[in-house]
Parts: sequence; C-alpha cells; structure tokens
Amino acid sequence: MDMPETASPSSADPSHLPRRAAVDAGAPPSLLDGIAFPADLRRLAPHQLPHLAAELRQAMIQSVSRTGGHLGSGLGVVELTIALHYVFDTPGDKLIWDVSHQCYPHKMLTGRRAWMARLRQSGGPAGFTSRQESDYDPFGAAHSSTSISAALGLAAARDLGHDGGAAGHSVVAIVGDGAASGGMAFEGLNNLGAQGRRVVVVLNDNNMSIAPPSGALVAHLGALRARMPGRAERHAAMARTPLPSFAASPTLFDQLGVDYCGPFDGHDVGEMVEVLAAARDRREGGPILIHVMTQKGHGYAPAAAAKDCFHGVGAFDVASGRQEKSKAAAPSFTQVFSDTLIAAAARDPAIAAVTAAMPSGTGLDRFAALFPERTFDVGIAEQHAVTFAAGLACGGIKPFVAIYSTFLQRGYDQIVHDVAIQRLPVRFAIDRAGLVGADGVTHQGAFDLAYLGCLPGFVLMAPADEAELARMVATAAAIDDRPSAFRYPRGNGSGVPIPVDPAPLEVGRGRIVREGSDVAILSYGTTLSRALAAADLLARIGISATVADARFAKPVDARLAALLASEHKLLFTLEEAAVGGFSTQVLSALGGEATRGTDPCRIVALHLPDRFIEHGTQGEQEAWAGLDAPSLAHRIAVAFGSAGTPELLAAE
Amino acid sequence: MDMPETASPSSADPSHLPRRAAVDAGAPPSLLDGIAFPADLRRLAPHQLPHLAAELRQAMIQSVSRTGGHLGSGLGVVELTIALHYVFDTPGDKLIWDVSHQCYPHKMLTGRRAWMARLRQSGGPAGFTSRQESDYDPFGAAHSSTSISAALGLAAARDLGHDGGAAGHSVVAIVGDGAASGGMAFEGLNNLGAQGRRVVVVLNDNNMSIAPPSGALVAHLGALRARMPGRAERHAAMARTPLPSFAASPTLFDQLGVDYCGPFDGHDVGEMVEVLAAARDRREGGPILIHVMTQKGHGYAPAAAAKDCFHGVGAFDVASGRQEKSKAAAPSFTQVFSDTLIAAAARDPAIAAVTAAMPSGTGLDRFAALFPERTFDVGIAEQHAVTFAAGLACGGIKPFVAIYSTFLQRGYDQIVHDVAIQRLPVRFAIDRAGLVGADGVTHQGAFDLAYLGCLPGFVLMAPADEAELARMVATAAAIDDRPSAFRYPRGNGSGVPIPVDPAPLEVGRGRIVREGSDVAILSYGTTLSRALAAADLLARIGISATVADARFAKPVDARLAALLASEHKLLFTLEEAAVGGFSTQVLSALGGEATRGTDPCRIVALHLPDRFIEHGTQGEQEAWAGLDAPSLAHRIAVAFGSAGTPELLAAE
Repeated sequence: MDMPETASPSSADPSHLPRRAAVDAGAPPSLLDGIAFPADLRRLAPHQLPHLAAELRQAMIQSVSRTGGHLGSGLGVVELTIALHYVFDTPGDKLIWDVSHQCYPHKMLTGRRAWMARLRQSGGPAGFTSRQESDYDPFGAAHSSTSISAALGLAAARDLGHDGGAAGHSVVAIVGDGAASGGMAFEGLNNLGAQGRRVVVVLNDNNMSIAPPSGALVAHLGALRARMPGRAERHAAMARTPLPSFAASPTLFDQLGVDYCGPFDGHDVGEMVEVLAAARDRREGGPILIHVMTQKGHGYAPAAAAKDCFHGVGAFDVASGRQEKSKAAAPSFTQVFSDTLIAAAARDPAIAAVTAAMPSGTGLDRFAALFPERTFDVGIAEQHAVTFAAGLACGGIKPFVAIYSTFLQRGYDQIVHDVAIQRLPVRFAIDRAGLVGADGVTHQGAFDLAYLGCLPGFVLMAPADEAELARMVATAAAIDDRPSAFRYPRGNGSGVPIPVDPAPLEVGRGRIVREGSDVAILSYGTTLSRALAAADLLARIGISATVADARFAKPVDARLAALLASEHKLLFTLEEAAVGGFSTQVLSALGGEATRGTDPCRIVALHLPDRFIEHGTQGEQEAWAGLDAPSLAHRIAVAFGSAGTPELLAAE
Repeated sequence: MDMPETASPSSADPSHLPRRAAVDAGAPPSLLDGIAFPADLRRLAPHQLPHLAAELRQAMIQSVSRTGGHLGSGLGVVELTIALHYVFDTPGDKLIWDVSHQCYPHKMLTGRRAWMARLRQSGGPAGFTSRQESDYDPFGAAHSSTSISAALGLAAARDLGHDGGAAGHSVVAIVGDGAASGGMAFEGLNNLGAQGRRVVVVLNDNNMSIAPPSGALVAHLGALRARMPGRAERHAAMARTPLPSFAASPTLFDQLGVDYCGPFDGHDVGEMVEVLAAARDRREGGPILIHVMTQKGHGYAPAAAAKDCFHGVGAFDVASGRQEKSKAAAPSFTQVFSDTLIAAAARDPAIAAVTAAMPSGTGLDRFAALFPERTFDVGIAEQHAVTFAAGLACGGIKPFVAIYSTFLQRGYDQIVHDVAIQRLPVRFAIDRAGLVGADGVTHQGAFDLAYLGCLPGFVLMAPADEAELARMVATAAAIDDRPSAFRYPRGNGSGVPIPVDPAPLEVGRGRIVREGSDVAILSYGTTLSRALAAADLLARIGISATVADARFAKPVDARLAALLASEHKLLFTLEEAAVGGFSTQVLSALGGEATRGTDPCRIVALHLPDRFIEHGTQGEQEAWAGLDAPSLAHRIAVAFGSAGTPELLAAE
C-alpha cells in the first residue's frame, strides 16, 4: 500500500490516539472510549452494542457539529458499521464503502476518532475512505457506484491466491440505493453474478441519494421494502433459514445471479450482527446481496427532519441543528448560473436542464420548481445524462447539462461519441471546476480542460467573475450549431453587478484588463482576480504587467495571444486546471507554424502542478498549487529575472 | 441536421441512385430493385416481404463480399429491418440502431444501396449510422449501449413539442443483447422506466456479442429465450393480446418499469410486422421492450457456421465464404502484445488480463486459452473493467487491461478516480491508437494521450515498432508502484526481430535514431518510420534532420528534448494523436520556467489536426492529417523556410 508523503496515522501507528480518553469524574463509563480499533469492539458482548451505537452516534454528531462534513449518511449506518466490524475480521476482511461519505462511524472505530477533529482540513483525515490513510480502507472512493467492481477485483485476487496470504477472507461492498442506480454498479453486479465469487453486497437502502433518488430501480426497491415483515416475523424466518428473502418473486438481483435476502432493519444492531454473520459463514454459494433498510439522519432529530437529511453540513449547533451560515456578500457561481438559466428559459421555451442526481448542488432545484417539464434529473447516471441530452438536442431542445467537473469524467465517452462527433449543441455547465476545498483529491475539477480541449469543434469558456458567467450562459444558449461548455468554481462571486438580460459574447474573443509593458498574464477563468493582485505585487518591485482575460479556451483568441506575445518579453498563461488545458490551446495557437517570424517571446504556462491535491481550504490549495497571488507574483518575478522576490513575499 | 462539408447523398438528394436499376433480360423481377426508399417498401403486400428479405440478404452478401465490413450482425436483422421500415413511417418515425454495425440492410433500404459499393472507403458510406449521411439516421452510433438514452432524449423532445412538427411520432431503439449488458443501457432503461415515455426498445437477442457475451444478464435472457413457445402457440397468444409475454415472472425489464413482451422470432418477417405494428399502435402505457430472437449470420451458411459469425470480414468468396487474407510479412501489433504477455505470464503467476468483450480483437483469446483463470472478459463494461482491475491490483495481481483507445474513453472516470488517484499499478494496453482506417470517425484513437497525459503519476509509452512493444510490455510488468499505459496502432509491424525475453526499458528515457544538424524530429510511437522517411526526403533538398524516438510521453525525456532544442533551430514533436498529448508534455518540460536562458529554439507540434477524421484507409487518413512522410517533409521544410518544397513533393 502506498503511504502518503506527509505522515498520517494508520493502523500500524496509533500513537497519535490516546488509548483511553480521559473520562469525566461522575460520567457514566464510556464504551466508545475503550475502542481504539475494531479488535476492541469485538471484545464487547452483543448486548452492549446498542449502547455503543448511541455513544458513537452522539460522538459523531458532536464531532461534525464542530468541523462540518457529511452527516446524514453516516448517522444512517452507525449500527451497520458496528455490526460489520463486529462480525468481520477487519482489516483482514475487506470493507468497501461506496461513495464513502458515510464512512465517519467507520473512521471513528478504526483509529481515527480523535483525528476527526481536523476532518477535511489540511493534515486531518479525508472526508472519504483512503488507502493512504488506513489499512482499514482497502479501497478509496468518493465517486459513486464503484464498490462492487472493486470488491469483485479483490475477491478474484483472493481466489487466485495473490493477496499476501490472507486467503479465505471476506470481501464486503456497502452500496447505497442511489449509487446502485449508476450503470457501473449494474456492470459490477452483472459480472459478479457471472463470476459467481464469494462477495457480500450490502444494499444500504435509505430511499435517498443526495436528493430523493430517481429511476425505476427505486420503484423496484420500494416494492421490496413494502414487503418487509415485522421484527417477530423476520426473526422467525431467520430461524428457519439464515438469510431469508421476503420478495414475492425473483428480484432484479436474483436475475443477475446475485442471491437476494432481506429487507432487514439496519438500525437493529443485533439483527445486523446475525445477518452479517450468516453471510460471512455462508461458504457454499456465490455472491449475496443483503437488503438493509436505514434512515438517513437516523437518531438526530434535526437531520432526520431536514429535506436533505443533513447530507453535507457546515458547523452547526447540536441542540437546535442550526448551521452557521456564512454571510456572503455575493451570490455563489452556482446561484448565478441558476438565476441566469431561469431567466433565459422564461424567454426561450426550448431551453431545458439536465442533472445527474444533483439538483441542489447545481442550482437546478430552483429551475425545476419553475419548469418541471423541462427539468430532467436522471439519477446518478452521467453517461445517460449526456447522451439523453444529445437526443434532446436532435429533437430541437436546447439542453444545459449541469454536472460537476469531476463527475463529468464519467460521461466522457458520451461527450466524444454522441455530442462532439455529431456536433450537437449540448451545453455543459461545469460546476466545481478547479480546486474545491474540503472534498479533496477525488473532487478536484482539474482535468476538464484537457479532456474537452482535445475535442474538435467544442467551444470552451470560463468566466472571470459572476457577471461574465451570466454572459456565458447567454452565449451558450446562442451557440446552436456545436457543443459548448463553461466552467466555474465552487464558492461565491466577487459581488460585481450581474446583467439582467446578458448579451452573448463574441465567440473566441478575449479582453485586455490592465495594460503593462514587461510581462503579460493571459488568464482563463476566475484566476483573473489573482492575476490582477499579482500584477499589483509585481508593480511594487518595478515589473509592469499586462493582464488579459481569455474568456475562451477554445477557440482561443489567437490574435490577442499573438499581440501579447509580440509586445512583452514573457507571456504567462494562467488557469486552475491540469497541464493540457488552456495553456495547450494558447501554445497550439502560437507555437505552431503560425509563429514563423514572430518575436521570440517566451511563454510560461501556470497551471495546476502535476500531482494530486489533497483536502484543505480552497485558499490553501491555491497556495499549494502555486496559484495564489503571492506565488504567482513570485514565479513571474523569478522567470523575469528580478532579484526583488524576497521583498515581494515579505510584503504580503 | 449538420451536413458534411463534402457532399454525400441524403434522402433529400437521391439523384446519385438510379430509381430503377436495370434488370437483366430473363432475370426474375426484383423486388429490391424497386425500392429506393422505405416509401417504396411500404407499397409491397405483406406476402412479398419474405421474398424481399431473401433478395436483400443476397444483395448484402454480394456487396460485403466485395468491400468487406460487418456482415454477421446485418444478416441477423434483415427481416427485422424490413419489418421496421414497413411498419414505421421513417424518417418521421425514428429508428436508432445501437452500435449500428448491423445497419447495412437499413442503409440499403434508405437510398444508399448503390453507394454501398464504396462502403467504408473514402467518399463512400460509413460502416455505421451517421446523421451527416442520411435523414434516416437520426442518431449516429458505433460505440455500444447508447441507443436507449438517445431514444429517450428524442422522445422527451417530441413530448415537449419541439421537434419541428412531427409530434406523435414513434421512437424505436434496436439494441443487441451484448450492448444491453453495458451499464449505460441500464442507466437508460432505469430512466426510461421512470420517465415512462412512449419508446419502443427492440432487444435483438442473438446470444452473441463480437464474442459470445458474458455476464449474468445473458443467463436471464437465456431463461427467457428457453420459454419461447412454438409458432402456433405464439400466434394464438398474439391473437388474445397483441404483445404477449412468455416469461414466468416479471423480468428484469418489467422491474425497471419497461413492459416486456416476447420472445418472438426475428426471422419471421410477418410476425415482426404484426408485433411492431402492435407496438406502434399502443398509445396507452409507457415504454415497451420487444424481445426478438435472431441468429447472427442468418441465411448465409459460412457465416452462421463461423465462430464469430463473420462479425467483421475482409472481401470474401461468396460460394466458399473464404476470406482473402493479406499475406503480411510481419505480425500485427496486437499479436506481438499477446505473445509477449503470454510469455511474461508464463514466468510470473501474478500477471492477469482483462478485456471488455474483445478477446480476439485484443489478442487475449490466445492468452485465455493458456491462462483461463487469469483472464477476465467482463463483457461490454469498460467502467467495470478498469475498477475491477484496480481491485485486482489491490490484491497483489498485476492486471493488464487491453482496451482500444476509443473504448477506453468509457472508463475514464474510473482511470482517474480508482487507478490514478490511488496510484495503483494497473497496466493499460491501448490497442487501435491513432488512425484506424475503415472504422472511421467514431473509432479513431485520437484522445488517449490528452486524457491520460493530464493525470499525475501515469507512465505513458508508445512503441516505434513491434520489438519496442515487446519491451514496453516488459516495462509495464516491471512498473509496480503506479499506473502505466502503452499505445499501439491497428495493423502490422515492420518485421523487425522481436526479443524473446525483452528487458524493461529505463522509464522516461528516449533515444536518438538518426543524427542531423538543422532540425530535429522527436517522434512518439510508430510515427518514427515516417519521421525517418521524411528525413530522407528533407536530405534531398539539403535539410539535415535529427530523428529521435521519445518512447515515453510521461515522464517525458526532458533531457533529450532540451538537448535537441539546444542543438537545432527547430524542434518538431510528432505523434498520431490530438492536441494536448505528447507535444504538451514536451512543451511542458521545455516551455516552463526550466527554459530560462536556453537557446530560442522554436518548437512546432505535429499532431492530428483539430477536426474529426472520417473513414478511409489508414494511409489516406495519415495524408489527410498531414502526418504521412511527404506531408511531414513538406511541413518541416516550410517551417524551416526552404523554397524546395514543390520539388520535394514531386519526388514522391
């Protein structure tokens, strides 16, 4: 297993944790304080587990109330998590959490409880499982629907006898009902059923994704849920056969070769222990799926009552459940996108919106309230979302597909094959582009510019601020003969006035924002404000910088780039994206045969470094990437050959 | 609809076709010759359709025997195709063929029969459906499992009333049993069932993918197939209810909200007409899936008897079915990959191979024969293939995932999220990289270098010839701490000797192949031979070229690139891939802050142009892309400023 370059706790090194936390005089003895690792848990008697569950739930609420994070999903699996570690011999047995935003109870039982105080912060534990972090996390996740495939791979390796001697171990995938709707989960089940290996799939059915789930599978699960008998009848059935199915006829899972049992009560820890032990001890037969009913936000009234079950929260007051709201002066980019699209849709009945299970994250919940017939939440199904939108475009609709940069990766082939090759006017609203902060390495919007920039015919835009975003929504609506995309970051705008009826931009035309003489910075997207701040810093040491806003990465404004190159000794391209994105488009425009005879201006690409960037604040991540204003000024000054950089950094 | 820049026939312009072909004196009257477009077909009486099917089948066999192409799939849907166009009012009603290699009978009935003589050749019809080509092709395809999503998008647009006035039309997706196993098809069905729109899905079940299909769904379909009653009983059931189901209990499709009916006999054209008409006229209810049994290669004995049912063939002798085999002096790259991997697996029991339904195309069929337990054909499921391999790697196995460049796009998120971020040593054998010839625009391996080059930690290699490929297989086997990939083209090697026990290469180190003084060409992959040929041409006009083989795009040999840049006036990067690939890695190594103070060598990137490249021979496509030796020599001479280029081109 790879270990992180910076030290972080693992099961091999629990020294950061007090083995026994100090107990307040007079406080009741704490079971949780006695558990550093699952081996401690397994020394408890079964009747102690409900009490432990209550403690773990309270500890998790307290912890997340201070740090923020994913709360509802974890609350729903407290009993399940305890039962899994009680029954299975982790880390020898492998638990693979799908998406894994529900992993907080798991982390708290596997050596990371105290460390949770720094959850999702620089140096703290990730908000998701991570192989770097712990031997108890055999497979990291954060995107959806991967766990069955990973579990099958681990099981196949086990069966081939190449896993380091732990042959015979169990492999368990825990997948939510939302994640099960992803096509990848179907591919995994289909192959699992065909390979017939000993894998336990726990279907954690809380009838929720981030939003209420959509899709026909949900209805199938609903029919199965409706057949769950009462506790006495369940236990009578379990006495007859250890893993009973209460379904009326073969389920979809049975039809895919995976034996179905359940549904069971996921909040009855004793029942969970019994069912999981039966699955562990079932040596004959192949894969089994255990249908478990849970409630997102269970055991914490404010979460259970909330519409999103406190899916993701900031710090909050435990008694009231009230979250600290940051009083942002400016609206978020998401909000501006939503507002502008709503206004455009009010004028143009052909505009429609597509989301893949993220109506609130993308701001399309408000669009849906106004235009329900023109809103399509297709569930966790990015592949389908893209091609469905291509079909809409063939039928004369103007679809806007709003998907986070990192999740759009899952629809890549569809973007190439169904949209770009057919040159269909599908508009991609790419939210969470660039560095995303606490969600960390798996959620960085780093690659969209590289994977879209190579596609012929695509129009790629990025707004410098929220007013520009409004203009780009209008521009995308107007581009009706080819695909287009605009990327914008997580977080709030800068408070500039937003045009009410924004006019489309001229495609492929950037703008000069500040005139200088020594160096030029050609920025793409919201890095513009940092470019301007860097120019201020550079001015203090006598370097005069021109700053321009490219607006378009494709078609890039070759005339503007050539002009900047011809009038400066150095031209810096700037973007919050990996190598291969905007800078490649500029270099391609300037560096090819067209540059014959031009002045030898040197071009330096400032983009994300060639490494993955872990969780922290967005500001920290910008600094780590060398893309905050002081780093930019420093890098530009060094490239320019100035000796004034120490002063410059001190000036901050 | 977009029209191609070069004119090609469409339904609006049938002038290229004789309305009635000349009939030989004495020959029986031909029904097929009377059909230019489906409207002609619809004038026939039902009893004439079997005769038409026989004629169409013979015409297709004759046509493909001369051009080569996909034969087996088309032979299996002759009756179904006739029935679809007979029942549905195409092109107003929309037929969407999944994958669409089975579209030849469809093309022959929709104005493209004579044109088929140039099938898959420059200026001829594509081997797949294409919106550019005909109004009868409302959605193009070539990758698998997209049709249900596209159909649902078209149906939603219809229901919103924005499709140009043809409201009320039918939308039909025709999907094979192999394609139905792709996760995307599941996503489409799941959303189709939830939206409940009027869409007809024809499940064309021939119990074959390119290879026999794998996965549990196949077993489910097998159980349904086994319940098909005889013709009399089917028709009795159809007399009672127009769209009967012969299943014993709700099928997987019913459970996803899509009404199942069948199975029916797809070679009984009368039965097909009756069933499809019932589906067309079914105005109540939502989506329906019609299970149709067909035989791949039906009606042509040599195809029906062949293991792959003549899936894809070269030109062949109709009487014997014998294909013209080109007598290649050298083995194919696919074959060298397979041979080398087999030898490596014989030495190292941890080596395993993963394919997504392409065992023969990737050469893994021979690996599977020797190492069945270490071969995993997961079906058409590239997403699962990648994450399954990541799971194998976590368990100590050394997986080689062999997928064509264009299909690997479908596993992109899994490559990022499950492999690269976790830095798992999964090896990607990327076949069909670069220009692929007759399969055309949807199959070009153009983007892998851009979409993988942006990922931190990946090792990217490309062999200049088949001996280098053998070394790169050994190199990938040896790289056990991070992901690696090697890309190689369709077609044969150059006949160089292949090392029996190849030694791993030093990672990140290229080589100089030819010394020159004026310009340098740094080539990546099999373009090396063209670089050397271009250097010969350039020598004739007094330009001396150094030629180097980069071997690695990532980590790129920065020292070699800097050396070439410092010793030449011009450095050309060369690759058969889109912008953003190898050239970006070289520019990133040279063009950033590291170049401070270096000589102002100008760097010119030679890669695929920024447009999609249609079908033709690989040689034609290289020339269209400006990447054949004469074009390269010309481009280099022009950039160098030589006046000798007309001569140069004349010399070829």
